[in-house]
Amino acid sequence: MSEELKLYGDPISGNCLKTKWTADYLGLNYEWIPLEILTGATRTDEFLKINPFGQVPTAVLPDGSVLTQSNAIAVNLAEASGGELFGADDYERAQVFQWLFWEQNSHEPYIAGRRFRLAYKKQPETEIDVEWLPRGHAALERMEGVLTENDFLVGNGLTLADISLVAYTRVAGEGGFDLGKYPAIRAWIGRVEKTLDLQPIGDA
Amino acid sequence: MSEELKLYGDPISGNCLKTKWTADYLGLNYEWIPLEILTGATRTDEFLKINPFGQVPTAVLPDGSVLTQSNAIAVNLAEASGGELFGADDYERAQVFQWLFWEQNSHEPYIAGRRFRLAYKKQPETEIDVEWLPRGHAALERMEGVLTENDFLVGNGLTLADISLVAYTRVAGEGGFDLGKYPAIRAWIGRVEKTLDLQPIGDA
Repeated sequence: MSEELKLYGDPISGNCLKTKWTADYLGLNYEWIPLEILTGATRTDEFLKINPFGQVPTAVLPDGSVLTQSNAIAVNLAEASGGELFGADDYERAQVFQWLFWEQNSHEPYIAGRRFRLAYKKQPETEIDVEWLPRGHAALERMEGVLTENDFLVGNGLTLADISLVAYTRVAGEGGFDLGKYPAIRAWIGRVEKTLDLQPIGDA
Repeated sequence: MSEELKLYGDPISGNCLKTKWTADYLGLNYEWIPLEILTGATRTDEFLKINPFGQVPTAVLPDGSVLTQSNAIAVNLAEASGGELFGADDYERAQVFQWLFWEQNSHEPYIAGRRFRLAYKKQPETEIDVEWLPRGHAALERMEGVLTENDFLVGNGLTLADISLVAYTRVAGEGGFDLGKYPAIRAWIGRVEKTLDLQPIGDA
């Protein structure tokens, strides 16, 4: 039984948007099933049957198998579509994976973490680990350095590294990270938004 | 100019050991260059020329290009060796990536994080984020659930998921995580150690 790809996600989550943007860029047919994290929609009995950990994004592949982890879903969709979005050669491919793992350990915890607590859970700044702000800026500085020299994170065109990193970088301001001092990042956000045909975040 | 693979790493770091164990399992020729993190050997001018961020593991591939991020190095070595260690089919491959990303965002920060601070930086427990202990146990419980049903994390044999996850799980006790209540994890550690021909951690 072959069915359509299903992507469960909440548009407030950059992790969820990564999977949607990847599917859109690849021109895949899929059903987007919106679930609101903040109202408990990822904790219903119905959804816990699909993903017992109650997390989004969750993908149900056309054969019915379930896949989680935003970057793993994006990698799977891109590989199943013929390997687009991994750069031009083996070393660019390796660099794409380098950025994807780096995003999960050195960028997302601090930048998405502060944004979720400040903008969505409405926690006061004083309740957030003081290390998260400098660590998030260290991640942004690393990106700024690369993007001062290059239009995209890897090679000469869009890869999964850009899709994954842009998701939370473009809304970093909501986590208290002033992007004003990162001109190369801001130019890159515009470039990636244009390539993905997204509404510029400045207009949101 | 083709040279031998070089792996720079410190054996106290599970992230470094992942790359070494992957290379050993694949039977690769490589030079292991030990650098002690705690004595500043990753911050020398010589090493910063190779990796300006002063982090290990760092791989210098046979063509001289530099690669970082433990799981990205392991993926690259395994792919370059013909695709071993990714499971038996496309879905197992996707699950391997799911575990590799999960390791970096939901396991390593808490389990390796507490171990490094307690056992190596000798910080008192009170200086460590109180959330790290329950989050580390949540990760171990998730693994215990899977390993109660399966001998390996994905499919019926060793994959990169096992190599990556075993690195810090086998020394979780040094981070204050009692593995006594995770019998399936303990049996799996023994199984992976045997498959990788490692000295059992209990004997270390």
